[in-house]
Amino acid sequence: MQNSTLPDSTDIIETPYLMLDVQRLDNNIKRMRAKLAPFNVTLRPHVKTNKSLEVTARLFAGEPGPITVSTLREADYFFAAGYMDILYGVAISPNKFDHAARLIGAGCRLLCILDNPDTALALAAYAERAAINFAVLLEIDCDGHRSGLPPRSPVLLDIARLMQHGNVHFRGVMTHAGNAYFCRSADALEQCAREERDAVVNSADMLRQAGFAVDIISVGSTPTALFARDLTGVTEVRAGVFAFFDLVMAGLGVCRLEDIALSVVTTVIGHQADKGWTIVDAGWMALSRDRGTAAQAIDQGYGVVCDIHGRPIADLILQGANQEHGIIASRSGTGAPPSLPIGALLRILPNHACATAAQYNGYYLAGTQRAYWPRINGW
Amino acid sequence: MQNSTLPDSTDIIETPYLMLDVQRLDNNIKRMRAKLAPFNVTLRPHVKTNKSLEVTARLFAGEPGPITVSTLREADYFFAAGYMDILYGVAISPNKFDHAARLIGAGCRLLCILDNPDTALALAAYAERAAINFAVLLEIDCDGHRSGLPPRSPVLLDIARLMQHGNVHFRGVMTHAGNAYFCRSADALEQCAREERDAVVNSADMLRQAGFAVDIISVGSTPTALFARDLTGVTEVRAGVFAFFDLVMAGLGVCRLEDIALSVVTTVIGHQADKGWTIVDAGWMALSRDRGTAAQAIDQGYGVVCDIHGRPIADLILQGANQEHGIIASRSGTGAPPSLPIGALLRILPNHACATAAQYNGYYLAGTQRAYWPRINGW
Repeated sequence: MQNSTLPDSTDIIETPYLMLDVQRLDNNIKRMRAKLAPFNVTLRPHVKTNKSLEVTARLFAGEPGPITVSTLREADYFFAAGYMDILYGVAISPNKFDHAARLIGAGCRLLCILDNPDTALALAAYAERAAINFAVLLEIDCDGHRSGLPPRSPVLLDIARLMQHGNVHFRGVMTHAGNAYFCRSADALEQCAREERDAVVNSADMLRQAGFAVDIISVGSTPTALFARDLTGVTEVRAGVFAFFDLVMAGLGVCRLEDIALSVVTTVIGHQADKGWTIVDAGWMALSRDRGTAAQAIDQGYGVVCDIHGRPIADLILQGANQEHGIIASRSGTGAPPSLPIGALLRILPNHACATAAQYNGYYLAGTQRAYWPRINGW
Repeated sequence: MQNSTLPDSTDIIETPYLMLDVQRLDNNIKRMRAKLAPFNVTLRPHVKTNKSLEVTARLFAGEPGPITVSTLREADYFFAAGYMDILYGVAISPNKFDHAARLIGAGCRLLCILDNPDTALALAAYAERAAINFAVLLEIDCDGHRSGLPPRSPVLLDIARLMQHGNVHFRGVMTHAGNAYFCRSADALEQCAREERDAVVNSADMLRQAGFAVDIISVGSTPTALFARDLTGVTEVRAGVFAFFDLVMAGLGVCRLEDIALSVVTTVIGHQADKGWTIVDAGWMALSRDRGTAAQAIDQGYGVVCDIHGRPIADLILQGANQEHGIIASRSGTGAPPSLPIGALLRILPNHACATAAQYNGYYLAGTQRAYWPRINGW
């Protein structure tokens, strides 16, 4: 049993809720812009992490710039708010042609991606039928982790040739160094960034030698963007999680804990004193099931426990999670945790900002009286 | 490259989306009702899995019955639809007293739970100030997995005594056998169900011997509900996932794959033929990050791959997932997967119905023309 003053229930928002530290957000954006400034590349931020008009507006000084989206629902949302130049970063499939065509018809400069002749042929047939012009990037697989054609694959030429006539227009190449999330050192991250660049630049060279104009050469991931030493030939960089950062990025050495702008605010609802557990009302529904730090040097459980001001507390992590219950315990498993009374508010730093933010409809802003920025989810 | 007919894009809903098989749902509900019929207990289904008025209505024949919720937002939603008898299954904290009081003031028969004298004292003070009557169950920890007091703990008597006067009324005891999700045999599940029953029945005996009336003796989890052999003394059973079932439940032997009513519909968007991969547009955002089968005898990755009619395909699972990309491969890692052309629609059976459903705002009903049941999320 704790002997402490319980907070007055009328003072506080019901937990769990998502909190965003705008000062950290702005600093993270400034850092990325400063990093990319010498490279003569366009930053085309991936808004799949934030899915928020207010957050995305801060990524640009003034008017809406080019963005990357992970769903056509994001494209709709941001286009309606004035974002005209949108790269849809998942290979288009036939059941999404109609949706893409609606956006293009409304004036959106939508860039679609694809990596196979089947889709290219289907899109060409659709575009002719619909009398809509599609702009397309070809996806390159720089590290074997997902979609895309191998760098300099002759199939790239086949697809580009399919687009020489008709309403589908080849604009360039793109790739994503997904394996950067599993690098263990700065050297490995620099190597990843080099391979990411080489994959698209070499493919673009091959396409240019075959007579194709290549306007857009696009790379992107937060770790490679921040560790790239040379982006010669690249025209744009996509990255998203850098705006918030998270424990996975901190584990990679890409940011510090104190750079993480996103946290989940939770309330202490109980204790199991003999086990050294504090129970809170943020479970996996509030944090997501993402356990991205499990494979890193420091496993952060479901998140690092901070006081309400965002300062990490001793060695505490959210060690376990049920749907609406979180179990706070010491990372080392030794020693009793500090006394956190019933009703105490805590902040949990998440493993993966994209996954945690997606559990909420908006962000409460740290240090404000309930200022709230909405976000979208779903498809 | 695949040589196949691409589906006509105008015939189909954009993927990914959530599909519910209502016939399976009804059969699963019938099975639970039949199982509990001999025991003279009330079924108080946990609606945290479905969060849907239409699904919950099918859990009752006719008028709204007693339910369990995991958030006060669920309580609001279901109360507004006529559900009057609601157990909020997470220990109440001071910052939720106002919300609970609003529900009670509006006529909701809300049951709150708590497991410590601090909360009981704070609630008593609040209830007196607000002139609102709260009904409370004490939470028992039957298997050490989460919240609650030990069975027959003298603290139960302390708290019950705190409620003898004033506006907080002790109504009974409840527990949840969370460890049932990790049982490896029918015997172990039966044992879990026995321990769950004993924990609350013995605690209720102690409280009755001390002179307290114990109206409600509540247990609940889908595995223990379906494997219980004796519920003597128990007044009600809470269970939720049984309505949908999922791969974790199938792995426990609690249901068959063909009982799983929930799936995610996805589209083939690419291939990596040399790796035997088929890429689809359902990643972890569409399935959730839940990897609940990872610790079971058969690791199902992010889900079992079925054709659009729900029949499992060969040995295929969603082996890997990025935010909006899923990688389908053979579970055994041997042999090439069957040819799944670009544009083909597939259904993925999820590891954990609660987590997967929470990624969506509603259910499309299998075998219908876009019939849709909305659901809620968040807090």
